[in-house]
Amino acid sequence: MAVLLLIKRSVRKIEQVEPQAGLLNDSSSDANPSLAEAVEPHSQVAVFDGSQPLAMTAGVSLSPFTIAYQTYGVLNADKSNAILLCHALTGDQHVANSHPLTGKPGWWSALVGPGRPFDTDKYFIICSNVLGGCMGTTGPASINPATGAPYGLDLPMVTIADMVRAQAMLIDRLGIDTLFCVAGGSMGGMQVLQWAALYPERVFSAMPIATAARHSSQNIAFHEVGRQAIMADPDWRGGRYLSEGVRPAKGLGVARMAAHITYLSDEALQRKFGRKLQNRAEPTFSFDADFQVENYLRHQGSTFVDRFDANSYLYVTRACDYFDLAGDYGGSLARAFLGAKSRFCVVSFTSDWLYTTVESRAIVHALNAGGAPVSFVEIATDKGHDAFLLDEPDFIATTRGFLRGAARARGLSETGDAKP
Amino acid sequence: MAVLLLIKRSVRKIEQVEPQAGLLNDSSSDANPSLAEAVEPHSQVAVFDGSQPLAMTAGVSLSPFTIAYQTYGVLNADKSNAILLCHALTGDQHVANSHPLTGKPGWWSALVGPGRPFDTDKYFIICSNVLGGCMGTTGPASINPATGAPYGLDLPMVTIADMVRAQAMLIDRLGIDTLFCVAGGSMGGMQVLQWAALYPERVFSAMPIATAARHSSQNIAFHEVGRQAIMADPDWRGGRYLSEGVRPAKGLGVARMAAHITYLSDEALQRKFGRKLQNRAEPTFSFDADFQVENYLRHQGSTFVDRFDANSYLYVTRACDYFDLAGDYGGSLARAFLGAKSRFCVVSFTSDWLYTTVESRAIVHALNAGGAPVSFVEIATDKGHDAFLLDEPDFIATTRGFLRGAARARGLSETGDAKP
Repeated sequence: MAVLLLIKRSVRKIEQVEPQAGLLNDSSSDANPSLAEAVEPHSQVAVFDGSQPLAMTAGVSLSPFTIAYQTYGVLNADKSNAILLCHALTGDQHVANSHPLTGKPGWWSALVGPGRPFDTDKYFIICSNVLGGCMGTTGPASINPATGAPYGLDLPMVTIADMVRAQAMLIDRLGIDTLFCVAGGSMGGMQVLQWAALYPERVFSAMPIATAARHSSQNIAFHEVGRQAIMADPDWRGGRYLSEGVRPAKGLGVARMAAHITYLSDEALQRKFGRKLQNRAEPTFSFDADFQVENYLRHQGSTFVDRFDANSYLYVTRACDYFDLAGDYGGSLARAFLGAKSRFCVVSFTSDWLYTTVESRAIVHALNAGGAPVSFVEIATDKGHDAFLLDEPDFIATTRGFLRGAARARGLSETGDAKP
Repeated sequence: MAVLLLIKRSVRKIEQVEPQAGLLNDSSSDANPSLAEAVEPHSQVAVFDGSQPLAMTAGVSLSPFTIAYQTYGVLNADKSNAILLCHALTGDQHVANSHPLTGKPGWWSALVGPGRPFDTDKYFIICSNVLGGCMGTTGPASINPATGAPYGLDLPMVTIADMVRAQAMLIDRLGIDTLFCVAGGSMGGMQVLQWAALYPERVFSAMPIATAARHSSQNIAFHEVGRQAIMADPDWRGGRYLSEGVRPAKGLGVARMAAHITYLSDEALQRKFGRKLQNRAEPTFSFDADFQVENYLRHQGSTFVDRFDANSYLYVTRACDYFDLAGDYGGSLARAFLGAKSRFCVVSFTSDWLYTTVESRAIVHALNAGGAPVSFVEIATDKGHDAFLLDEPDFIATTRGFLRGAARARGLSETGDAKP
């Protein structure tokens, strides 16, 4: 049975622990900062050599490969307090620490930290960069051992299932059998669903947030626009730009601009920017960024280029497009969750038009059909898809409440230790 | 008072009179087909010389300038049966005849022709290419008489009001005082609203369809992505590509792809394409156009480039962005329509998320406040913004009904003659 949690706006405001840094730090002036992180990340790494190849959906094996990850908090004695957080499309493992390239706070600082819902005083939090990413986990900017040059498009296509199988190998390496919780939003939520389907016995609780069990036609269409923008840039060089010392910055910037619109609601854009002009009283009647929203989008595009690799963008968008969990189970989403033993909390946001509440309800119905215990919360907000990254009181309260209940059920004490 | 017309699905299906031609005819192999049409259009032209400069919103005069237009039907003796149809962003004057570049039927063939709502047996239909366009009316691909080369970005910025003032000069030239109707969808609807505001005494009836009285922040954002895609193409050459013998085809293609998604609803895309693969049983796990929707979008992008000029795309998108009718009247849309004497029929489509019903209601409320007679119809369809171009029975019935009522009020006989 789906249970609709009604949350009151009574939660205290979460303060940002880390100071808001400038948009770019010094390393952004580096010609290839994302290549540097891809090869020598500011993270722990787990290397899987020839003895542990990854069997990929595309029918090939990847070996060797590397997973870059961050951890926060302490794993308890019986390893029952581990939480895996899965990042979204252009996120990374730096969920709760300053980003090594931008200096900005971790992407989920609002939810992860001491006293926050994902309480680092209580839980052992793991976040790894996805396969195909560019922050140290093997991706197209990583060095292909066969050639000594970056993989580029020679990296096999990565799927959400590949990302999750690689994460499971990391969890094995960390000696953890069952994760107390797997949580994530957007593409992170797809990974959560894939975890529940592939490893039901290893997931005690699961939070798929602002996500969908399959990429819709419109979702694919927006991603394809981004990919074509990158590939249209002559500096993309058929994907070999890193070897040739250039970067398709303009194409990647346009891709990010197009995508960014889908992360915000019409209402949020109207409220934040409306038709306000940028530092001028009258329109210039030119192609300058007269409107604040133009200036904002251009800024989003240009700063993204400093922290992300264009080929990685191709790979991660493609992974989402191929995601169709029901398709992997004979067209039945309920069948994907047939053996699900986890407790679920599915969260959607009213103004999210990228992964709408309709998509979340489909997940809830399939979980119901599979007999899994599931709560469903639709958070009222005008902030659009990006609401899952923001300090939304109802969302934070929901997460806190769900995790507290799961911790009780798991027999975890207030300090995160297993009760005797 | 707004009157909601309830229409039954009882209207006969409109047959396409003209055969559906291939997507591109021979002239598309021409290196610069849109330049050819810009300079020597397959249309009548009205030339306005130095004695009739156009005073533009940007504060400059344009002179000389040319308007390319098509007419259908016969103007009656007292010139009371003229209808001006205003085209959308990338439309043109070829509203009801085969397109000279693509060979496809006119963009509103479903509504314009003998026996159709805009009945060419009854009315004298005029459609002109907008200022800033590329089909013969002065635009950035036209020759700048001062230099002998195409204007490029030296053409002053064009606004919706400039387009309408130029159209009014064409209507003067044709000897017509009052238009029986001004109608159009999307950017065409903006022109309709601008006509009603600028020349209330010259508009007997008006149909603004699938439009808005101002461009929203999200509208501007999508247009800005398209412009940045064009400007990111190295073949754009700062707008001087025509003089340099190249074209920013890739950038323009990406711009069209992004825009095209906004013309269709999520539901329409899901119904038409869903996650269906393109001519293959299994995904290739590559960046090929595996999905039908990708193939469709790429096709939309590449064929668009054969019929449209990139700089024109910059100008017409910018004209929409600057459109804010209330802004021109002290922030009050009602004031824009204060002297409106026209009969209005405002039409929106339920699944149009580009110019939503909310925007149409704002127009209706302002017209109500101004005391103008206005009908409002929201058509239930899942086809999105593009529904206004399609053979939608309820929409066709609405248009037919509104025009019949207006014709009676105007004293036009069944043959389009003024009754004695």
